[in-house]
Amino acid sequence: MQALLVYAHPEPQAFNAALRDVAIKALQAQGYAVEVSDLYAMNFNPVAGRGDFTESQNPEILNLSLEQRHAAKNGTLIPLIAQQLESLQKADLLILQFPLWWFGMPAILKGWVDRVFISGVVYGRSAQFELGKFRGKRALVCTTTGAPEVAFGPNGINGEINHLLMPLLRGVLGFTGMTVLPPFVGYAVPYLGEDARKEMLISYESYIKNLELLTPLSMPKLSDHPEMPTGNDRPKAK
Amino acid sequence: MQALLVYAHPEPQAFNAALRDVAIKALQAQGYAVEVSDLYAMNFNPVAGRGDFTESQNPEILNLSLEQRHAAKNGTLIPLIAQQLESLQKADLLILQFPLWWFGMPAILKGWVDRVFISGVVYGRSAQFELGKFRGKRALVCTTTGAPEVAFGPNGINGEINHLLMPLLRGVLGFTGMTVLPPFVGYAVPYLGEDARKEMLISYESYIKNLELLTPLSMPKLSDHPEMPTGNDRPKAK
Repeated sequence: MQALLVYAHPEPQAFNAALRDVAIKALQAQGYAVEVSDLYAMNFNPVAGRGDFTESQNPEILNLSLEQRHAAKNGTLIPLIAQQLESLQKADLLILQFPLWWFGMPAILKGWVDRVFISGVVYGRSAQFELGKFRGKRALVCTTTGAPEVAFGPNGINGEINHLLMPLLRGVLGFTGMTVLPPFVGYAVPYLGEDARKEMLISYESYIKNLELLTPLSMPKLSDHPEMPTGNDRPKAK
Repeated sequence: MQALLVYAHPEPQAFNAALRDVAIKALQAQGYAVEVSDLYAMNFNPVAGRGDFTESQNPEILNLSLEQRHAAKNGTLIPLIAQQLESLQKADLLILQFPLWWFGMPAILKGWVDRVFISGVVYGRSAQFELGKFRGKRALVCTTTGAPEVAFGPNGINGEINHLLMPLLRGVLGFTGMTVLPPFVGYAVPYLGEDARKEMLISYESYIKNLELLTPLSMPKLSDHPEMPTGNDRPKAK
């Protein structure tokens, strides 16, 4: 089995790195081959645009989605993106490891999604949710916060963590058809002492060892939404 | 009055640019001075890290929030970030104009937030929501989608648009104390003909001309959350 762990933190000694390493070790013990995309170490450029392609389908006006489809079909994605896409496609398990910055992914990780989740390959109008291209893959989000857990509870000042993560859990991962596991969230990490951090690592290790026992998040189904357009009508140029 | 419009689209002829220009014109007609940060044109680097600062408080371990506070206090933010922060601070109205990519901001805009919304200047433990540093400023999100409006309704397959935008509307903008106006959303833009696009621009123009009539989104209050920690306890290094 193959896992892809995408890691987005600028500090190699961060607690996020310890979480990453716990996951790698526990997965390898289960027989996974683990590939890591360490976005900061790779100096990954998260800005989607013409630079994603070695040729333009339409040099006049850039429609990113159309250019992505063209490039995927013609083998004209730049090598970096083609390689990340290939890693994503062959993974049985995707782990995203990042600190929650402004209630979402750091830009370097958001841009990994923008650039690698290629239109026509990763999703399409008729390829979403239960008809998604990534059916059978599992996805897991592991993130850390500065604010305490109480800020992310049902009546928390910041809103419930699973609502805040909805654009990622349902919008990115569930949308592609992946089975999305409940996220592992390390709360208030900057304020924890060494013992509390060790306990958190132990509890994450146990989480990774027991992925089979987790109940995946529930996702919408295209079949429940007959109002959604399907088929091949093509977007206009702009 | 001063407006800052942050624009994030790689294509100068995109419909997002038309929306941007409608806002600029309508605001200027109301007497606003409008500054535009065109992130793609600026070749803005959205990756937060050591490169944000001209010196390190802690060269051993990077804690972004601590380095931001240090740099803001000591004038050691790099000029680009210092200048964007200054523009943000002097704005009475902030407009974010972007296409909805993967249910959120394009990475280039997310990173503008990551890098410019400086800890200690833009927010703090006791400076959130009704006690936020940006009380009195107004914020407005204008975004475009590929999927149709029905996909973002109360029972829409993608979830309600205001829930999807919660990390931005409440998490970024409301959190800083800004008065957050309801977002203007252009649905299914790639599939619209010229007439429908013109109508959308007219309706956005009318929206901008009548900002005073809009009911701001409701935000949580720190005073309703006595469970939230306040004060000056400092995060540990990692």
